[in-house]
Amino acid sequence: MTVLILTSEEDVTADMVVVHLNALGVPVVRFDPADLTSGVALSGEYVHGAFRGHLSSAGRLVSLDGLRSVWVRRPGAAAARAVVPSAWLTEESQQALYGMLRGVPARWMNHPDAARRARHKPWQLRLAQRSGLPVPATLITTFPQAAREFAARYPDLVVKPVSGAHPQDPPRAVPTSRVDPDTDFTAVAYGPTLLQRRVAKRADIRLTAVGESLLAARKPADPDADPDHVDVRFAPSTGPWQPAEVPPRIADAVRVYLREAELAYGAFDFAEDADGTWWFLECNQSGQFGFVEVDTGQPISRAIAEWLSRPLPGERQQPLNRTDSVLP
Amino acid sequence: MTVLILTSEEDVTADMVVVHLNALGVPVVRFDPADLTSGVALSGEYVHGAFRGHLSSAGRLVSLDGLRSVWVRRPGAAAARAVVPSAWLTEESQQALYGMLRGVPARWMNHPDAARRARHKPWQLRLAQRSGLPVPATLITTFPQAAREFAARYPDLVVKPVSGAHPQDPPRAVPTSRVDPDTDFTAVAYGPTLLQRRVAKRADIRLTAVGESLLAARKPADPDADPDHVDVRFAPSTGPWQPAEVPPRIADAVRVYLREAELAYGAFDFAEDADGTWWFLECNQSGQFGFVEVDTGQPISRAIAEWLSRPLPGERQQPLNRTDSVLP
Repeated sequence: MTVLILTSEEDVTADMVVVHLNALGVPVVRFDPADLTSGVALSGEYVHGAFRGHLSSAGRLVSLDGLRSVWVRRPGAAAARAVVPSAWLTEESQQALYGMLRGVPARWMNHPDAARRARHKPWQLRLAQRSGLPVPATLITTFPQAAREFAARYPDLVVKPVSGAHPQDPPRAVPTSRVDPDTDFTAVAYGPTLLQRRVAKRADIRLTAVGESLLAARKPADPDADPDHVDVRFAPSTGPWQPAEVPPRIADAVRVYLREAELAYGAFDFAEDADGTWWFLECNQSGQFGFVEVDTGQPISRAIAEWLSRPLPGERQQPLNRTDSVLP
Repeated sequence: MTVLILTSEEDVTADMVVVHLNALGVPVVRFDPADLTSGVALSGEYVHGAFRGHLSSAGRLVSLDGLRSVWVRRPGAAAARAVVPSAWLTEESQQALYGMLRGVPARWMNHPDAARRARHKPWQLRLAQRSGLPVPATLITTFPQAAREFAARYPDLVVKPVSGAHPQDPPRAVPTSRVDPDTDFTAVAYGPTLLQRRVAKRADIRLTAVGESLLAARKPADPDADPDHVDVRFAPSTGPWQPAEVPPRIADAVRVYLREAELAYGAFDFAEDADGTWWFLECNQSGQFGFVEVDTGQPISRAIAEWLSRPLPGERQQPLNRTDSVLP
């Protein structure tokens, strides 16, 4: 049984996981869907009520029935590097590849449907509330009056995009910024605006969830930092990430979140306040983890390799660390 | 409890359903997400573990908690008709609207995740097989040799797109066409190709499923028709659609399909062969039904209105056909 990794060619984070998969003796096929029709080929046959499918990449042929798991890491758009690329060819190739893969019993990290749903920030906030995670008071609105009333109740606010990255090519991260209390909210009518109570944080928390395994890292906030620098992605570093204990209530809530979201992997961002409360900011279902592993030494890539290697329900388990097996 | 309909302004099929909803005395809010920020407004507040959301359209304000169901008919891209439209504004508005709606307990026809998945033709074919529907032998491939071998086994073939409509603006339907037995399949390597055994059909079948209700219509094939005209959408009409009985085994299989696909609505296309077998061609989760209702008199729009009107689980049922009720 093979692990399929869909990602771009230059992905050192995927390389880290492949090293562990190799050590476990698990066969791996890795390719970028962008290479479909130029290096990567697929075929699926529906005859007499049965389906038989194959993928070929770099001269290796793998049966879709033989897939144990699919890791959707950072795949390119299907057939984007074809000899004559087009929106039509990408759509056809995307449908052919993912349409076939959706029909096989492999386990997904993460399933495309769960991944897509998980990107909705308003849905994330609601699920976090329901899962029992503390969520800073938040408003998403196109009503200027609603924004004004919210700012009166919560004078210390930040504004951030509803959807994440700006869709230019390459996508541009829009920083979270503080909102001046005297802001004129009239322009809110022209586009949905996300306002959130600013958490006066003493640390940033990154919690990486891989199946049931939760690994948290913490980075203290710089006490001398300009309070206008609220976005950790754009703030000067205050030192490396350090491993952190996950409070049991947070662990329970995160597991509820992942189960409801049907996610096998999630990178949670929290802001830790002066009382030690972890405030949920977001969960990125494809968040990077390499920088945390490098700083903390936490075995995230190994946890991912182990999750991807797990046998399917009903599959006869074979010793995973034996590469010299003569069994078929 | 209100029914929310997301569709374009000029949608006479939606009008048919609204007439029935009005007759049932069910409150309806209908708008096009394209009008977000210019006529349609939204707001959602996440405070103290709870969510309160509102939509406003044409001066009417509706609470998201008060939504009974959401009918995703033919909505435009969010904020497409804003004063200054942009890809960024559409993405922000799409996320805000659907992200909030995904968090409320309303019933969906169809849920965006189920709708998206259901568009994958390769997945449809596999699910149809598993559900027990007869599926014509089909190959989807980028291997010329696989195409040649398939054509040798099934010399009477059609070719059709994997993904449906060509993504131009407006989208263009690509007709299903016969494949000459002497075809050179070399070009298959340049894009996934769907080849299917041609069903020598004596009739086209359109089965419209609304919840548990299945309504089938049949149109006999023209016996004098050119056998190269395989696509009913482009063939000259042979007369109106007629109501047809659904064979019990097909009904069972279609219900399995809908349950597995998590679809509340589906328009199934079958080809009926000389033995009376219904061969599954596709299920369009947003297929039109107005033309069938007009030809056959089948109460499809009423079935949709009734499905949308059903109370949520746990909701206190109120008499639906009373508009003079003094209850709140």
